[in-house]
Amino acid sequence: MDLKFINPFMIALVKVLSTMASTQVSHGEPFIRKDNTSGAFGDVSGIIGFTGKQAKGSMAISFSESAILDIAKKIFGEEKEKIDDEIADMVGEITNMVSGGGRMKLSVDGYKFESAIPSTIIGNNHNISHKTNGKTFVAPFKSDAGNIFVEVCIEDLIK
Amino acid sequence: MDLKFINPFMIALVKVLSTMASTQVSHGEPFIRKDNTSGAFGDVSGIIGFTGKQAKGSMAISFSESAILDIAKKIFGEEKEKIDDEIADMVGEITNMVSGGGRMKLSVDGYKFESAIPSTIIGNNHNISHKTNGKTFVAPFKSDAGNIFVEVCIEDLIK
Repeated sequence: MDLKFINPFMIALVKVLSTMASTQVSHGEPFIRKDNTSGAFGDVSGIIGFTGKQAKGSMAISFSESAILDIAKKIFGEEKEKIDDEIADMVGEITNMVSGGGRMKLSVDGYKFESAIPSTIIGNNHNISHKTNGKTFVAPFKSDAGNIFVEVCIEDLIK
Repeated sequence: MDLKFINPFMIALVKVLSTMASTQVSHGEPFIRKDNTSGAFGDVSGIIGFTGKQAKGSMAISFSESAILDIAKKIFGEEKEKIDDEIADMVGEITNMVSGGGRMKLSVDGYKFESAIPSTIIGNNHNISHKTNGKTFVAPFKSDAGNIFVEVCIEDLIK
């Protein structure tokens, strides 16, 4: 499986969570989604679109409630009982940083992207799918507190 | 209130639903979101990012389950009991068309955007917010079957 489009974002997520939130995560094997409604689920997700001459697509990071509340506790230094505005902003910021790190690595490989602005989705156990001719890669992660998924869907316009 | 960024997408939604799905919708007054977790809620949403030299942003269209099942019935000619893969694809396609119509109108006004690929979010009563310095405009719509919201968040880089 060609992981060139997902690997840079996986590496960026590990680095961002470790440096920003003192959170270590382990990851399982990335896989390709078979249909729209399989794949990553989460209680809060950050999503960002990319455009470029060589490729376009989008990336989503989905957190379980327990995982994001634990991260918020480490970043803000206080316990929160539920996902609020401040956490929504934080997820947008994490998404921005992971997007930036991943795109920087991909630009070295010749894929230059502009990024749109990140959106945050809040809702119990929602699922994200992508309308695309390309493949959607899913990378499952675990922190001590819960599940995190990174999904990357990029249409390679060079091929 | 300056509606130049939301009006083109409102007009495009009315047209797309009317021609594609024989669905007439009425709209309420557009408003500016006050915080992240107010504004549009839905059971299925299409979201797409834009990038451009003059502005960047994103647009989301959120449907209640009853509204989208009614639209699906009109498009596919059969009753569906729940939001499935086919409906997720259809929401992505509607999002693409509304995005295209809105962007075409905005390009006449000097705002040229590239669009990323649409993503579809499925999940009961989820909420979408945007990480941005710009304003988020929300336009509420109603069909005979339920609620539909269009949200547009664009950062004007010309100002």
